[in-house]
Formats: sequence, structure tokens, C-alpha cells
Amino acid sequence: MSGLGKIVSNFKSTFAKRTQPGARPGTIVVDPKAPPPRMHVATYGPDGVDEKDVETVEQLRGSLKDGRVTWVNVDGLGDAQVIKQLGELFSLHPLVMEDIVHVHQRAKVEEFDQHLYVVVRMMSGDGNLQSEQVSLILGEGFVLTLQERVGDCLDPVRQRIRSGGGLIRKSKADYLAYAIIDAVLDGYFPVLERYSERLDELENELITRPGHNVITRIHRMRSELYMLRKSVWPHREAVNALLRDSTPFISSGTRIFLRDCYDHAIQLIDIVETSREMCSDLRDFHFTQVSMRQNEVMKVLTIMATIFIPLGFVAGVYGMNFDSDVSPWNMPELKWVWGYPFALGLMGTMAFSMVGFFWYRGWLGHRPNWLARRMSVAEKNN
Amino acid sequence: MSGLGKIVSNFKSTFAKRTQPGARPGTIVVDPKAPPPRMHVATYGPDGVDEKDVETVEQLRGSLKDGRVTWVNVDGLGDAQVIKQLGELFSLHPLVMEDIVHVHQRAKVEEFDQHLYVVVRMMSGDGNLQSEQVSLILGEGFVLTLQERVGDCLDPVRQRIRSGGGLIRKSKADYLAYAIIDAVLDGYFPVLERYSERLDELENELITRPGHNVITRIHRMRSELYMLRKSVWPHREAVNALLRDSTPFISSGTRIFLRDCYDHAIQLIDIVETSREMCSDLRDFHFTQVSMRQNEVMKVLTIMATIFIPLGFVAGVYGMNFDSDVSPWNMPELKWVWGYPFALGLMGTMAFSMVGFFWYRGWLGHRPNWLARRMSVAEKNN
Amino acid sequence: MSGLGKIVSNFKSTFAKRTQPGARPGTIVVDPKAPPPRMHVATYGPDGVDEKDVETVEQLRGSLKDGRVTWVNVDGLGDAQVIKQLGELFSLHPLVMEDIVHVHQRAKVEEFDQHLYVVVRMMSGDGNLQSEQVSLILGEGFVLTLQERVGDCLDPVRQRIRSGGGLIRKSKADYLAYAIIDAVLDGYFPVLERYSERLDELENELITRPGHNVITRIHRMRSELYMLRKSVWPHREAVNALLRDSTPFISSGTRIFLRDCYDHAIQLIDIVETSREMCSDLRDFHFTQVSMRQNEVMKVLTIMATIFIPLGFVAGVYGMNFDSDVSPWNMPELKWVWGYPFALGLMGTMAFSMVGFFWYRGWLGHRPNWLARRMSVAEKNN
Amino acid sequence: MSGLGKIVSNFKSTFAKRTQPGARPGTIVVDPKAPPPRMHVATYGPDGVDEKDVETVEQLRGSLKDGRVTWVNVDGLGDAQVIKQLGELFSLHPLVMEDIVHVHQRAKVEEFDQHLYVVVRMMSGDGNLQSEQVSLILGEGFVLTLQERVGDCLDPVRQRIRSGGGLIRKSKADYLAYAIIDAVLDGYFPVLERYSERLDELENELITRPGHNVITRIHRMRSELYMLRKSVWPHREAVNALLRDSTPFISSGTRIFLRDCYDHAIQLIDIVETSREMCSDLRDFHFTQVSMRQNEVMKVLTIMATIFIPLGFVAGVYGMNFDSDVSPWNMPELKWVWGYPFALGLMGTMAFSMVGFFWYRGWLGHRPNWLARRMSVAEKNN
Amino acid sequence: MSGLGKIVSNFKSTFAKRTQPGARPGTIVVDPKAPPPRMHVATYGPDGVDEKDVETVEQLRGSLKDGRVTWVNVDGLGDAQVIKQLGELFSLHPLVMEDIVHVHQRAKVEEFDQHLYVVVRMMSGDGNLQSEQVSLILGEGFVLTLQERVGDCLDPVRQRIRSGGGLIRKSKADYLAYAIIDAVLDGYFPVLERYSERLDELENELITRPGHNVITRIHRMRSELYMLRKSVWPHREAVNALLRDSTPFISSGTRIFLRDCYDHAIQLIDIVETSREMCSDLRDFHFTQVSMRQNEVMKVLTIMATIFIPLGFVAGVYGMNFDSDVSPWNMPELKWVWGYPFALGLMGTMAFSMVGFFWYRGWLGHRPNWLARRMSVAEKNN
Repeated sequence: MSGLGKIVSNFKSTFAKRTQPGARPGTIVVDPKAPPPRMHVATYGPDGVDEKDVETVEQLRGSLKDGRVTWVNVDGLGDAQVIKQLGELFSLHPLVMEDIVHVHQRAKVEEFDQHLYVVVRMMSGDGNLQSEQVSLILGEGFVLTLQERVGDCLDPVRQRIRSGGGLIRKSKADYLAYAIIDAVLDGYFPVLERYSERLDELENELITRPGHNVITRIHRMRSELYMLRKSVWPHREAVNALLRDSTPFISSGTRIFLRDCYDHAIQLIDIVETSREMCSDLRDFHFTQVSMRQNEVMKVLTIMATIFIPLGFVAGVYGMNFDSDVSPWNMPELKWVWGYPFALGLMGTMAFSMVGFFWYRGWLGHRPNWLARRMSVAEKNN
Repeated sequence: MSGLGKIVSNFKSTFAKRTQPGARPGTIVVDPKAPPPRMHVATYGPDGVDEKDVETVEQLRGSLKDGRVTWVNVDGLGDAQVIKQLGELFSLHPLVMEDIVHVHQRAKVEEFDQHLYVVVRMMSGDGNLQSEQVSLILGEGFVLTLQERVGDCLDPVRQRIRSGGGLIRKSKADYLAYAIIDAVLDGYFPVLERYSERLDELENELITRPGHNVITRIHRMRSELYMLRKSVWPHREAVNALLRDSTPFISSGTRIFLRDCYDHAIQLIDIVETSREMCSDLRDFHFTQVSMRQNEVMKVLTIMATIFIPLGFVAGVYGMNFDSDVSPWNMPELKWVWGYPFALGLMGTMAFSMVGFFWYRGWLGHRPNWLARRMSVAEKNN
Repeated sequence: MSGLGKIVSNFKSTFAKRTQPGARPGTIVVDPKAPPPRMHVATYGPDGVDEKDVETVEQLRGSLKDGRVTWVNVDGLGDAQVIKQLGELFSLHPLVMEDIVHVHQRAKVEEFDQHLYVVVRMMSGDGNLQSEQVSLILGEGFVLTLQERVGDCLDPVRQRIRSGGGLIRKSKADYLAYAIIDAVLDGYFPVLERYSERLDELENELITRPGHNVITRIHRMRSELYMLRKSVWPHREAVNALLRDSTPFISSGTRIFLRDCYDHAIQLIDIVETSREMCSDLRDFHFTQVSMRQNEVMKVLTIMATIFIPLGFVAGVYGMNFDSDVSPWNMPELKWVWGYPFALGLMGTMAFSMVGFFWYRGWLGHRPNWLARRMSVAEKNN
Repeated sequence: MSGLGKIVSNFKSTFAKRTQPGARPGTIVVDPKAPPPRMHVATYGPDGVDEKDVETVEQLRGSLKDGRVTWVNVDGLGDAQVIKQLGELFSLHPLVMEDIVHVHQRAKVEEFDQHLYVVVRMMSGDGNLQSEQVSLILGEGFVLTLQERVGDCLDPVRQRIRSGGGLIRKSKADYLAYAIIDAVLDGYFPVLERYSERLDELENELITRPGHNVITRIHRMRSELYMLRKSVWPHREAVNALLRDSTPFISSGTRIFLRDCYDHAIQLIDIVETSREMCSDLRDFHFTQVSMRQNEVMKVLTIMATIFIPLGFVAGVYGMNFDSDVSPWNMPELKWVWGYPFALGLMGTMAFSMVGFFWYRGWLGHRPNWLARRMSVAEKNN
Repeated sequence: MSGLGKIVSNFKSTFAKRTQPGARPGTIVVDPKAPPPRMHVATYGPDGVDEKDVETVEQLRGSLKDGRVTWVNVDGLGDAQVIKQLGELFSLHPLVMEDIVHVHQRAKVEEFDQHLYVVVRMMSGDGNLQSEQVSLILGEGFVLTLQERVGDCLDPVRQRIRSGGGLIRKSKADYLAYAIIDAVLDGYFPVLERYSERLDELENELITRPGHNVITRIHRMRSELYMLRKSVWPHREAVNALLRDSTPFISSGTRIFLRDCYDHAIQLIDIVETSREMCSDLRDFHFTQVSMRQNEVMKVLTIMATIFIPLGFVAGVYGMNFDSDVSPWNMPELKWVWGYPFALGLMGTMAFSMVGFFWYRGWLGHRPNWLARRMSVAEKNN
């Protein structure tokens, strides 16, 4: 139960809006528990890369240079002032700033005059699924990314920039945006792999130790996969929007790479849905097993009871106290020489014929084939 | 049960049409129980705001001024005369006037030559869901809103107009319309938050006190969420119509804000559907628990009965009154020196072997792992 | 059962085609049980209205006049000759004539060179749902309507023409067509209202007298609502076709009114689907209740049996006839001074401890909270 | 079971491809069991009709005449040579020839330069559903139809050509194609009518003799309707393709008739789906009835057992053999003057109070209304 | 269980990505267990065909000749170097090279400047479903196919090239691509045929030996068909893309053949879905049978128990030891001359009347028709 409980609470937190209903659009209310922002800026071109951590937004001003790509990454959204200054520096729309700090957006793409605003959700966590919003602003010559916490799955991208291999250093900012989105989507695969391992374990457990516990965990897993599905789905639409829209921010060369991204999104959806289907299959299979087993229990037990109740009745009859001295009709069997063996024989005969009847009806297990066939023919003729 | 009952009645009231079938379109038949209209008018521009309560529609005539935005708000639809006068003043189409007083419209957008007619539904109520229709007419320089009752969720908007912060005083009437629609949609979030809290409570109760009562409340909640879903869904379509239509009433600047509104509508739908899914999950989980528990009860009880019935039979046999004096075959055990201990031993052996058999079949609980594995191997080989 | 039976028969009749498969298109085969046609013609304009009943189609010839609208209404389709003459007079396509007499069309709109052919279905009947096909032909200056039987829901429209209020007398034939379609759709609302009342009654009955009967009626109601849904759905599409098609028969002014009609169609679909959902909810709720109640019955009864079976066994043991004179081991208890009280005490102790065990496991009802909590903690630790 | 069995076998045969996987497209491999072709040719115009049976394809060469319509009908596809010659004569695409002999195509329309290729499926069979593929090639001035077997539902069309009534003799080949498609679709109606009759019978049987047999037949019927649905669905799409495509083979006059055909296809789908829904309804209803009845059985029986088990226990107690001579505590009741009546009275009291308790809890049937209401109030207060 | 287990593991392997999340797009990481590539090249034209096995990519350079079609087939993807050289030779996009070695793509079509990239999945395996990715690159004058393993279903295509029959030698490379895709899709039919045979067997087994085992296999089959469905579906979309896209790589002549391919894809989907539906039907049918049979068991057994428990009670009463010497009220029956026959008669009467009651209520099987009808009338009147 504790599992499901956690799900509801997770879910509960996902739509807590911090702004008052009806508040001014663009109101930036940061989560008081959010960590303070840490900023890192990387400027690169075919010839090399400059990286530095910066303390204030002011220090960013000189970073954008012609012909080079600047990637500003912000970890932590706990300071409204910094968000506002970034907004001014990159001339962000107030609604974009609001969405950045309201970290429960679905994946989406929005085009503005000066930039493209993309939201993707990063999934992580070993036992405990955690989702983090990554806001990406793609403008002329720069990419600005904002994350909820320090720590992400973008290190391979940073490595590629530093090493200078591949196309990334030779390409424009749109390719960097693609690389980031692709890395975030790629990050779902290990998570789903862990789910498939858990599915495998659950299955093994179903064989050796079926019970209350397994079914609770299957239930929980289905709920988690539902959440995961809700998180994955919008990415497909978002990447598709990037692909199809005739936006000037994405070059046609990068679009080919985004097509690959789109393929990955579809694959993710496929895997999540197949996993859910398998959860359902395991659950159904479990219930089939449980009900089969229970039928067996009930059948054996009921058969035993049924055999012994009539026998007990016979014993009861011969336990009656009718006075056989008064008349020859009163329980003369009690005086017979073979009375007791006769009674035992009667009981034995009853038990044997009942077992035979049960066997004939197939209630004790499978009938031999020749009997089964004869009976199914008989049923057809009816 | 009382819960569901209320749902049906709520639902019943939602489609009571007051006009006769086949009546003239535009017939204004007010609900006799509707409160009388109260009118409030606010005229504002970048330089300031004038507010006043007005008694008659006549007093409104002078309010519309060039270069300023006029917001006329009417609470209460109980006077057909006032509605008609408003219709004349703002040159409303007869169908709009009809829809205003028929307060069970779905959210929608309709464009007319002179104005845009928008219906949204305001949701409120702590324990008891209540839905109120807000009709909004957006014309050149004015916004007219009509509500069923006094009291709404638009106070933050009024506050923003008065304080002059943000864009609202500098913008046209279309921005005001957006602000109102956004406030109404925002009003759903607290309602849904309460639902998520109730879900959480239900879950806790399922752990500590599962029973009839919880399942009734889950049933009721699912029905309420169904209603809520029916209410939320059309907003998505309506806001989308505002976004996409090339209507002259909405400027492109405001359209960006409406895009945010659209996001909120989708988020609302997401939350409602996830909540419903969770209700179903909780219900399924409850039934799984109930059936698991019941199986356990039945199993233990049946096992006890099954063990004692054969024992009772043996006792019955030795309670028979066959006359052992007549012949040596008649219950000689009764005369044995160790007869009674023998009988008790027989019963003990039977009970012990039956318990052993049940344990071996795994009906008394989990078999130890080594046994479970050996048996599943055996089953495979079959 | 009788309820469902009727449904199948109703359904059966709905697709009985009277023409032979492969017959010439446009073959007019009237239902022999259909009543003979009665014709009524009304010609009106802004200045007044002329109405008369006519006997033969010939008499209609002079009715169409420039600048005025002529409404010919035919009740009863029992005379193929009359249908053919009408077809010639209004130059109807043979397929239209065929569809008019095949009264099981779905609602639809078909455009021809000279006229627009609209089929709508009128729903009536208090306890017993009845559906009637209304064929409407809209041409230049005239509307021809053909109905299966005398009696319809169009009297309010006739009244509006006579009284001259509203737009109807000032408008063209397309407005009349709209008014008729709207009146037919409006006629569904009272029918659905009766369904909601029946739902309410069923719910009340579920509380006070749940049983076989209620569930049969819920089943029947669901089937009826399925039929109703099948009947309502196509209207949405048909009205939408009128709205969207760039047909010259509908003026843009009337199109605004049709938009209202479309809203009504969607509302009807909404109500029907919500009603069906509620039927399902009631049914599920009923089954939950039934199974809860039954569990309770089984539990109490089984517990009683389980307690008394072991007690009966003890009594059986002391009813055995071992001869205690033969040896001191043979049932010495029978000779004890406190033998009987000892036996009763043994039974009492057994009964008490079993009841205690059942109570501890929570099978006798809810455990007190402190116990429930302690146990759920214990389960977690496992 | 035999019913379902047949379904699977029917289904199995439907996708047996006779050509090897990867074989050359256009490979004509005839079913060795297919009957040899019989050819019939009819040439008609407004002035008259010439009909003859032909033996070889050569004889067909002279049949096509300007200004007249030629209908070549082939029954039986057992001779690859004949198919090839027909292909050459009418310049058919190799794929068309392949599809003609692979008689498990879904209904479809394919346009080629010289002709239009239409596949429809003819349904027949009283108790045993049989489906036959009809390939129709519509070219300039001719229609070629190829069927699997002799015997079809096209006789009414032939009759119309001979009699010269209606439009058929005055129209082009496209009208003939329409007439054939329409006749095939019309042929589904009697089949579906028989299903509705069987549904009606099943329902009656459910009332008078519910049992194993009925439910098996409902199962079978659902499977058959699934097959029928799979067969009907593609016709809708195919006819729609004919309607919408701007193909030069169909004149606009004929298109109006095809619109009627499309209506029929939709009606067929409607009927099939409603029939399936009804099967499900009947099945659900049956299970409700079965479970209701079974509950009743179990309840009555369990109640009887529960009442008699405690009574049996009391009788057992007084059957114990404690020696009342040894002490006054040993079963003094046995010596009481009123001992036996006391015991009987005790049992009677127990039985009576248990029955009363069961009645109070409503387990013996409906409680009277006043009690039901009082108790439901009490439950609410809890 | 082992069956399902395998499914999960199969599924698990399908999304194991070998590249690190976030790796450079186009990174070629081969599966270490993949076999080394074997290359075969065939160059053909109307006049003849040259075939050879080649060792290195270098040897391929001279193969492409004007006016002829070159088919390079690679079996085994175990050497990253070879893939890269092929990529250079045919100027493949890095993403294509990545997709070639990531052998878990869904079927798809991607267009590049120089070539068309098509992925299809080949299905094989008798008892154990195996899926293999076939990458096909169609360029000007050449087709390059890459498969995971040696052994495929393309031998018929090779044979057709060698024999020179049909169109293949006279056509361009696009026809070869079509022939390959068609052969792969055709390869699904035998697999599905085996499924239908297994369905048939399962059905027969359900009749003669229903049990645990059958239902497990039906479960497993449904899961496998789910996988198959996931694999088949995207082919429809892919072939449709080839059909519709105005790509210059496919000539209009070949497009007609692809239409046939599309038909096959739809047919495959149809068959898979019908098979799944049948699995569900069999499962439902099985459960119906199981529950029917179990009801029967429970009913007979419960009835027997119910009859004998009251009889046992009567026997118990006359086994009580009340001292009939003390008073005339103490069990005088024991002294009656006809006491024992009276007791037996009493028991017989009880048994008989209970059986009669059960029969009357229809619990012993079907009531005769006259009784059933009378009772259903009586129920209606209630």
C-alpha cells in the first residue's frame, strides 16, 4: 500500500501552483525550497571552447560573440531576481519566465519572435522515479538551459563539445539544442531498462512466491508507468512541432537529426505501453493462477466434507438409542452378528460410490481421454 | 449511496431547459429562482480607473469612451428585462441572449460581426462541487461579463486593474478578456487540489479501515471527476478556437498569452484524467485486497471444518450402539484395554496427516522456497 | 427480461428493408401498415399566412408563389402514388423518394441540384421509446416535410408562423427548415429528462429495495440509451454538414442559428453519454453492494459453522461407547466427578479462543484502530 | 464448443496464400478445388439486349461494341489459362489477375489507366456464413465480373437489364457497376435479419431454459459477428473512394447513386455493431442472472446448514455418556423429568432466534420497507 | 509460466541500446555478439546477371554500372569498420549508419538527398518467434540491404533475378526494392498460419483436456501476438509513405506494385488482430466453462451436504441419553414399538421434501418447460 500512497503524493505535488489563481501572467514565484542558481557558460566554435562558472548575470553580458555558440546553463531556480535578470538579458517573454519556475510543465515547444522556447522533462532515479523540468531557450547564437537541480544527463554533450569530435563544434546553436534534447530523451532508456528488469523479477517471484506482495508491486508499477507515459507522450508532439514548423531557428540539416529524435520518442512510447500491457498481463495471469489454485483447494476440501457428512449420518443413525428390546422393529441391526461389519461396509460402499461419481464427472482431475471424448459427444447430441 | 444520489440529481438539473421545445430562438426565459442582476462598471486606461455600481442599464450608456476599456460585470440573471436592454445596448444577437440565461452551456466561442461571445464555466465549492456559467462578450473597447450569482474568482483581476501593475491597464479589451478567462481556468486548480487531498485521505483510510464506506466514496469521487472532466474538456477547444481563429478581436500580443491559457487547459485535463485513473487504481486495489483477505478467511475456516468433519465421523462410529455381547465382530474395540487411546490416536493421526497434506500443497501459506522450486520444476516436466 | 426482449424486437424492425435486395434504385415500396397521407399546406410572408388541408397533389400546384414561403407537410406514407406525384411536382431524385418511404434512415443531409434533402429522427414516447423519420426537402421558396404518422412536435413552429412573432415570417424558406430541425432536436430534451428521472428512481430503489428487478431495469435502460445514442449521433454530423457546406440553400444569417442547433446536438450527445455512464456506475455500484453484502453473509455463517463443528466433535468423542469398566484407559473422564463440567468448560474455552482469533484477524468486523495500525506496521516490516 | 471450433477453422482458411512467399507479383496460382470457369456475356443498349453463354475467351472478342454496354460474368476461377486470356483481352494489370484468384481480398477500389478494379464480398448462407469474393473491372463500355462459384445475388440486376425498366438500359457501364455493387451490399441485409432472429430466439431461450448451451451460442454468435464486421467495414471505405475520387470512370450522375450505396454500407456497419453490442448485453445479462440465482442457492443452503449445525451440537452434548450416577454434576439434565422437552425447547429457541437474526439482517429476502429505511438511516449515521 | 517469462526477456532485449545516452549521433557501436559481415553483390540488366561474393568493401567499388542494377547484400553487422566503409562508398548519413547497427528500429521510411532509407522487420521461427531487422538503402541504380544474420526469405527474389522471368530484370532498382519489401511482408504469412494452427490445437485441447496448462498457453499466445502486432503495424505506415510521398526514387509503375504491398500489410494487421480477438474469445469461453463446471460441482456438493445435515441432526436427537425411565416425557419414542421405523420415515420425508423443494426452485437442473413458463409468468407479475 505504501507504494501506491507514494504515487498519489507524487502526483499531488505535480500540480501545486505556487501563484495565486488569477495572478498577473508572468508573475515569478519561486519555490522556497528550490536551490539557489548556479550558472555555467561555455562559448565554442570550430577553433576551441571557453568555459567558466559565473556568479552574477552581469558577468554573462560579454559572452555572446559573433560566429560562436554560447551555452548558458543554470542549475537551481531558487532566486527570482536572477531569473528576471536572465529574462532581461535574453529578452524573454514574461510567460516564459513564469513557465521556467513553474516546474510542472508538459514537454512543449513555443515560438517567439526572438527565440524558441522548449520544455523537456528529464527522468532519473533508481528506485524512486524523479522528474526534472529542463527549459531550453534557443536564440540566435546561444542556448540557455535552466534546470531544477544540480546534476543532469548532459555530461556527454559537454564532453563532445570539449573533445571537438563530431559535428557539434562545427554547427550552430540549433545543433546544440538538438544534442541536449536528444540526450534528455536518451536518458529515459536506462530508466525503462530498470523497469523491464523489475518486470522480470516480478515474474520470477510470481512463479516461486506468488502472493499479496507481488500483486501490490505490480499495481504500483502500473501506476508508475502511467505517470511515465503521461510524461513521455508530449515529447513526441513537441519534437514533431520542431520538425514540421517552418521556424527559422532550426536549419534543415539539424532537422534530419531531429527526425532521429522523433523516432526515439516513438520508441519510448512503444516501450512504456508494452511495459504497461505486460503489467496487465502479469496481473491477469496472477489472478488466473490464484483462482485456479483456489478452485482446487475448495474442490478438494468440499469433496472431503461431502463424503464424510453422509457417512457421519449413518454413524449417527446407529448411535440412536431406540430400545430394541421393546420390539423387533427397533434397530434389530444392533443385535445382528454381522451388524458392525455390515454398517462399516455400508459406509465404505457409500464412500466408494461417491468418489466414483465425482471421478466420472471429472471433478477429481482430468478424465482419461476416451471418457472425455465420449462425454463431449454425448453433450453434442443433447 | 447518498453520494451517488446527489450526483444524479446534480446531473438531472444540468439539462433542464426552461424554454418549451420548438420555442422561438432567442426566447429569454429566466430561471424564477435566479437572483436579480447587480451591475458594476469599470472604465480604465493607462492613466486611471473609474468604478461604480449602476442600477439601470440606462446609466451604462455613457460609459464607453474612446481609448479606454470598459468592463461591465452583471451578477444575477433573474430579470429578463435587464438582459434585453443589455442586448440592445451592446447589440447582441438574440441567440447570445438566450444562451446567457440558459446557464448550462458548454464552454465555447462564437464569433459575431460586432463581438465575440465566449462561455466559460467557473468551478467552486469545497465539499460540494458547484459550477457557474460565465458569459463574456468582447467587443470594441468593452468587455461584458454575466454571471449567475454574486461572488466569483475575478477579484485578483480587479485588483490588478486598480493597482495598475503589469500590462492590464496598458492593454486593450482583448487582454482583459484573456485575464478573465485565465482567472476562471486558474480557479480549477484549487478544486483539483482538494480532490487530490481527498484521494490521499481515501488511500490512507483504505490502509487502516477498508470497508463499505471507502468504496462508496471512491465510486462517488469517480462520478464527480467524470462531471468535472465533461466540464473541463470543452475549454481546451474553446481556447484553441480563440488561438487559431483569425478573429479581429484578439491581437497577436494577447494570442501569446492565450497560448499559456491553452497550456493550462491541457494541464487541467491531464490532472482530471490522472485523478480518475487513480480512483480506478484505488478501486481495483481495494477489490484485490478484499478478495485476498476473503480468500484467506475462507481458506482457514474451510480447512478447520474439513479437519474436524472426518474426526467427528470417527467419533460417531464409536458412538454406535452395536451390541458387542452378541458377537465378537460387533465393535470389539470398545472392549479393548487400549480402545480409547487407540481411537484418540487414530483421530490424531488423521488430523496430522491432513494438515501435512495441506501444508505440502501450499494451502496453509507459503511453502518454503526449496519446496516451491522443486514443485514448479515438477509441474514444468508434466 | 421482457424489457430486453422488447429492445431486440425494436431493433429487429429497424432494418427490415421492404424492397428486394438488388431492386431498382428508387423503387417505392410502401409499408402496407403505414397510414394514408394527409397533406397540409401553409403559404406565408411578412404580410400573412394562408393555410389549408389538401386532398390531392394536384391541388398543391398553385401554392408556390414568388416572394412567399410554402410549407407542405405530409403525415403518413401509405400511398406510393402520392409519393410519386409529390416527387414529380417537386422534381425529387428517385433515391430521395426511396429514402422517404424507407423510414429507417440515419439523420443525414444530401445536396441535389434543385433542393437539399435532410433526414432527422423525431423521438417520442413516455414509457416506450418511439422514433419517427422526418424527411425535409428544402428548395427555392418551399419546404416539404414528410412524416410517418399524424402528430409531431412541430406545433410550436406552426404557432410562430401564425402569430407572426420573431423572425420566421420575415425570413426565407431556409429559416423555416432550421426552425423545424431545431424543434425536432429540442424534442429529445423531454425524453432525456424522463430518463434522468428514471435513473433517479432506480437509484432510490437501489437503496431501499436492491434486487433482481432493479438490475434488470438498469440493463434495459443501458440498452435503450445505446439505441438513443445511435439515433442522436448522426444529427451532429448532419447539422455540421449544413453549417460547413457552401450550399446555396442556406443563407449566412440562418447559419448562425444552425450553429445553435449544432450546440444542442452536442449537448444531447453529452447527456446521453453521461446517462449511459451513470447506468454503468449504478450497475457497478450495485454489484459492489451485492458482493459486499454476500461476503458478510458468507462470513458470519461460515464462522458460526466453524465454531460449532469442533465443539460437535468434542461432544461426539464423549458420546463414544468405550467400556470404561474394561480398563482405566477407556474414557475415565466419564466417571470423573467433574467430568461433565470439564467437558463443557473445554468446549467453552475452544469457542472463546476461536472467536478471539477471528476477532484478532479482523474477520468479525473492523479492528479497533490501535490494533489495525500495529498490524499494518507489522505487515510492512515483513 | 463445436461452434467456436468452426469459426477458427473458417478464419484459418481465410488467409491461406497459395503462392509462395516472395513469388513474382502477378503469379496466378488457382485453387485446385475451384470450379472451372463458366462465361456469360450480355450486351445491351437502350434498344435491346443480347445474351449468350460462351465457351472460350476468343468468342468474347467481338462482343464489345460502340455505344453499347457489355457485361462479361465469369463464375468459377479454376482455370489459370482462362484468367490469363481474359487479362490479355481486357489488358488487366498482372496484380489484378493475381488478386482475382486470391479470393481473400478485403473490399477495395484500385484505379488503373485503362480500368477501375473493385473488390466486394458477397455474403450468403443460412446457418453457415459463407463469403465469396466478387472482382469487378469497370472499363470503357464494359464491366467484367469474376466470382468464385456459380450462383449469386445478381439476378435482380439481370432481370432489370432484360426488362428494360428504370435507368439501367439507358445508362453507361458505370451505372451497371453501381447496380452490381449495390446488389451485393443489399445481400447483407437478409443475412443480418437472420442474425437478429437468432438473437431473438436466444433471448427467449435465456428466459425459459438458461444454461450452458445458450451461452455457448451467444459466444459463437459474437465471434461470427466479429467476422462479419471485418468483412463489412472495408466496403464503406471502398464506396467512399468511388465517391470521392475524381476518377473518369464514374459519371457524376452515377455518383449520386453511389452516395446511396455509401448510406447502406454505414447502415450495415451500424446493424452489425448494434448486434454485437446486444450479444454482449445478453451475455452480461445471462451472467447477472446466473450469479443472482447462484447467490440465492448458496444463501438458502448455507442458512439451512448454519441453523442445523448448532442444533446438532446440542443433540451431541446430550448424547455424551458421562455417568450421572457418579456425581450430581454429570449431566443431571438427563434425569430431569422435563429434560427432553427442555432440550427440544432449547433447540427450538436457538433455531428461532437465528432465523430471526437472519431475517433482521435481510438475508432471507427483502426486509419490509419500514425496516429497510430505518436501517439505511442507521447506516448513514455511522 | 515459463512461456510468459520468455516474453518479458525477449521484450527486455528489444530496447537495450548499446550506445551511451547522450552519445554523438551516428556513433556506430556494434553488438559484440553479432556475426561478421559477409557481402554478396549482384549486378543485372535485361541481358544478364553477374554475381559474386566479395571480401572487402574496396572490391565493391567497380560494381555500380550505368544502365544496370546493383544489389549489394550484407549479412552480419559485427564489424563497425565495414559499416563505415559502406557508409562512405554509398555516402550514407551518419544517422543511417547508426540505425543500421541498432537493430531494434520500427519499420520506417526516411528520405535523404542521395537515397531512400527503408527499415523492415523480417519475422521467422517455428516455435520461437524471431525478428530480424532488414535495412534497405535505395539509391540511383543500386539497392543495399543489410541484415543481422545469414539466412533470409529473399531467395525467391534472387531466383527471379537469375531466371530472368517477370519484370524484375527489365526494371530499375526501385522495383528490386519493392520485390524485397514484398518478400519480407510475405514472410509473415507462414508465421501467422502457424499461429492459426496453434489456435486450432488450443481449441481442441480446451474441449478434451481443459486445464491450467491451456490457459497458460493462451495467455502466452496473446502476449506473443501483441508483440507481433507491434512489429507489423509500422509497416503499414512505412509502405504508405512510399506510396504517397512524391519521392523521385520510386517510379509510378512501381507504385502500383507497392499498392499491392500496402494491401498485404493491411491484411496482416487484420489477421493479427483477429487472432488476438480469438485468443480473448477462447479465454473468455474457457472461463465461462470453468465457472459453469465449478458452479455445478459446488451445487451438487452443497445440496448433498444440506440434505444430510438436518438428517444427521435428527439422528443426533435420538442418540441423546435422556432417561426415559424417569418420566414419560423423556424420549418416549425410544420405547415405541414403531419408534425406529418412525424415525427413519421422518428422515426420509425430510430428505424427500428438501429434494422436491430444490427441484421446484430449479436448482437440480432445468425445470420442465411448463413449470419454467409458469414461474416466469409469476415473476413478471411480481
